[in-house]
Amino acid sequence: MAKQEEKKFVEHITPRSEDFSQWYTDVILQSELVDYAPVRGCMVIRPYGYAIWERIQQEMDRRFKETGHQNVYMPMLIPESLLLKEAEHVEGFAPEVAWVTQGGNEKLQERLAIRPTSETIFCAMYSKWVGSWRDLPMKYNQWCSVLRWEKSTRPFLRTSEFLWQEGHTIHETPEEAQEETMRMLEVYREVAQDEMALPVLCGRKSDKEKFAGAQATYSMEAMMQDGKALQAGTSHNFGTNFAVAFNIQFLSKAGKLEYVHETSWGASTRLIGAIIMTHGDERGLRLPPRIAPIQVVIVPVAAHKGGVMEACDAVAARLKDAGFRVKLDDRDTLSPGYKFNDWELKGVPVRLEIGPRDLENGVATVFRRDTCEKAPMPLDTLPQTLGGLLEEIQQNLLVQAREFRDAHITDAHSMDELASIVETGFARAMWCGDRACEDAVKERTNASSRNMPFDQTPIGDRCVCCGKPAKNLIYFAKAY
Amino acid sequence: MAKQEEKKFVEHITPRSEDFSQWYTDVILQSELVDYAPVRGCMVIRPYGYAIWERIQQEMDRRFKETGHQNVYMPMLIPESLLLKEAEHVEGFAPEVAWVTQGGNEKLQERLAIRPTSETIFCAMYSKWVGSWRDLPMKYNQWCSVLRWEKSTRPFLRTSEFLWQEGHTIHETPEEAQEETMRMLEVYREVAQDEMALPVLCGRKSDKEKFAGAQATYSMEAMMQDGKALQAGTSHNFGTNFAVAFNIQFLSKAGKLEYVHETSWGASTRLIGAIIMTHGDERGLRLPPRIAPIQVVIVPVAAHKGGVMEACDAVAARLKDAGFRVKLDDRDTLSPGYKFNDWELKGVPVRLEIGPRDLENGVATVFRRDTCEKAPMPLDTLPQTLGGLLEEIQQNLLVQAREFRDAHITDAHSMDELASIVETGFARAMWCGDRACEDAVKERTNASSRNMPFDQTPIGDRCVCCGKPAKNLIYFAKAY
Repeated sequence: MAKQEEKKFVEHITPRSEDFSQWYTDVILQSELVDYAPVRGCMVIRPYGYAIWERIQQEMDRRFKETGHQNVYMPMLIPESLLLKEAEHVEGFAPEVAWVTQGGNEKLQERLAIRPTSETIFCAMYSKWVGSWRDLPMKYNQWCSVLRWEKSTRPFLRTSEFLWQEGHTIHETPEEAQEETMRMLEVYREVAQDEMALPVLCGRKSDKEKFAGAQATYSMEAMMQDGKALQAGTSHNFGTNFAVAFNIQFLSKAGKLEYVHETSWGASTRLIGAIIMTHGDERGLRLPPRIAPIQVVIVPVAAHKGGVMEACDAVAARLKDAGFRVKLDDRDTLSPGYKFNDWELKGVPVRLEIGPRDLENGVATVFRRDTCEKAPMPLDTLPQTLGGLLEEIQQNLLVQAREFRDAHITDAHSMDELASIVETGFARAMWCGDRACEDAVKERTNASSRNMPFDQTPIGDRCVCCGKPAKNLIYFAKAY
Repeated sequence: MAKQEEKKFVEHITPRSEDFSQWYTDVILQSELVDYAPVRGCMVIRPYGYAIWERIQQEMDRRFKETGHQNVYMPMLIPESLLLKEAEHVEGFAPEVAWVTQGGNEKLQERLAIRPTSETIFCAMYSKWVGSWRDLPMKYNQWCSVLRWEKSTRPFLRTSEFLWQEGHTIHETPEEAQEETMRMLEVYREVAQDEMALPVLCGRKSDKEKFAGAQATYSMEAMMQDGKALQAGTSHNFGTNFAVAFNIQFLSKAGKLEYVHETSWGASTRLIGAIIMTHGDERGLRLPPRIAPIQVVIVPVAAHKGGVMEACDAVAARLKDAGFRVKLDDRDTLSPGYKFNDWELKGVPVRLEIGPRDLENGVATVFRRDTCEKAPMPLDTLPQTLGGLLEEIQQNLLVQAREFRDAHITDAHSMDELASIVETGFARAMWCGDRACEDAVKERTNASSRNMPFDQTPIGDRCVCCGKPAKNLIYFAKAY
């Protein structure tokens, strides 16, 4: 029976080359990261998926605190009148808000929005809390869920409800706000690269693509294996837009009433989607060791033979003591082969197979998920060897992803070139800065502008679309 | 100016004896734990309050994982039809549900409840996930916010939205479910006693007071300084109630389809209210060191004098290295006296005052918040001394709370006695087991039954209310 299940198992994953979208769905459901919920457009995050989110949270939260931020919790309900205060903001979010109109048996006098994001409520509180320059900066963050009534949804990538963190800060000067905006973009970039092995492209969004109510939005963009872009984190400088709308003023050192300068920044469970679509292969997930809930799985071979389970227990205990996240798969109704497939699907970076012959030789057979290579390694020195191996896997995943990305970024000097390039990757192009050209690109190719990199070394002097003098270097891509 | 502020400061806290309720409000607002939100009945949890919650989360989450539980995330929206599936459950919760009726510009065909609790959605998923006995137990937990449309609200104690964790588990046998129910009650008791210094009374709820849909509810009850009870955590055994309603069946070892046995258990930000009302005094909060966000605050005295700030910096660094949660209060516009009041209000367990005279003597002046005593302690050995002192404070708070509680529990042998006792504490009484008597007690005294302790040694043989033969020993108290 195990054999049969095993077969079914592997057949279930659609090859990436055949249908990337179906491959994604197969992998997330079969690896038990997520499931569909009984309410439209929502997802259930299962233990294995949530454990990845907890790892991401830990890495981010630690850096938020190191950079002087504090966590808070704001209510999930926002009165309609509050949401309407900043004009651009409401225009951007109102169409996708879920409204509470009834509380208990009482029909509400004013509708309440379930937060699509919390700028308005942070602003309402900041206006109450700030007195003088001595109170600044205030640098707060919250971990919560938000809700946006999306028409078409995919788990992790776009769901009506998702989990995220949203940082909201207020500052004395425009310079400090800009510095904060850049600092948090850099924190995101670092977590993406160092923990999730995601090479990202950082830059400024066009006015069309910026956050509703922001003066400037910066993003990090990751490339998926189908060449599409995934916006993996954003950091916004609001200037005084919200401060004016919400009257957030402080008494400056000079004794004058001034508006605060504000930022916000957010990253979400989308990042899990980015990890899957960047690193996954035909066998399923490949998780970077630093965010893998299980770094090492131990599979006993011929577990009924004398000494095998004892040896596996001992190795598991030693590795746990050494600080690894270890799982011993002692399920007695499944074959080793079934277990191999199962943990490969789940993307565990290293598998140790331990059977009678391994024990005779004083080794474990070590399988690394990134290359799918196997080699014997002495049991004595396993803790040291594994530390190095996990680090090697982490780096290898980053290198592979970076090579893939770089091989799929191409300069576009004409609309024909651009249209062809965005079928399989990112187009780098010059742009005049006009929204009309962004719209024309979108219309013809279905690609949107991603961001304008900080290194603006030009690759030409004419707009890829209209041929007029170019102002910016910019990335175009189809996007999730 | 600092002097003036200082005066205003202290005057602001209403004495407990004069108006306990106003004292509570003064303390939570002035210590900046919480603020009122611009939406009715909701609270904003400020950084200092949220940091306490994070400490509680860490202590609980660690124990949940050690006892084999995994975290997940379920959607916040529950379709009305799903909420209606278990009859008692819906009767209990429907009157306090907030309903989403509009998503974006679309009027919904079916109303969606914002979760008041998530039994129904966990059950819907469990019915999909469980196949055979091999899949059991499933022991899941989630950290989230829930919403209950409350008529009268107080921050932490009763708000429309609050933060909590809810564990939901399914098991093969009734014995395992009962064991789990008791295990998690014990986890709550341990966290309350060992981390928060809250002595609690554990026992079973009456049928009237049990959770809507449960077979049996167990609670831990804490006593506040006004003698009122606060239910600080509950653990429920559902038997097969929900399993039948949601058709959660599994193939047993014997090859038969059977219903799972289910539990759920929850604790919330109410615990912060319990800490405040158990330990606080006229100066403000007194936080148990193990859950205090700041364990040691350092206040420089005559900070402008040579060597003082350098010494404070050095002590702060040493204490941080030794693993303490330390804050150096280097605000240069406030007097030491103002700072003393501020950190006493905020309940920091230990304050170090370091000035020129202290440095001459090679000591810090150490103030402990629990007793408000001051003593010099050598700087050399501070890390060791403070470890012991913090532990002593932790124990002292528990002893004080336990003595207060025990002095305010009195046996009641008549309704007159009971009515008098619950004015200032808990009444312990015999009860016939009839709901009519619970109702009569409530009607006359406004006290409700709290729980029936596990030690049922009788204190009489007649019901305190009707005089018929008694079945149970039970606590009555007014409650938050």
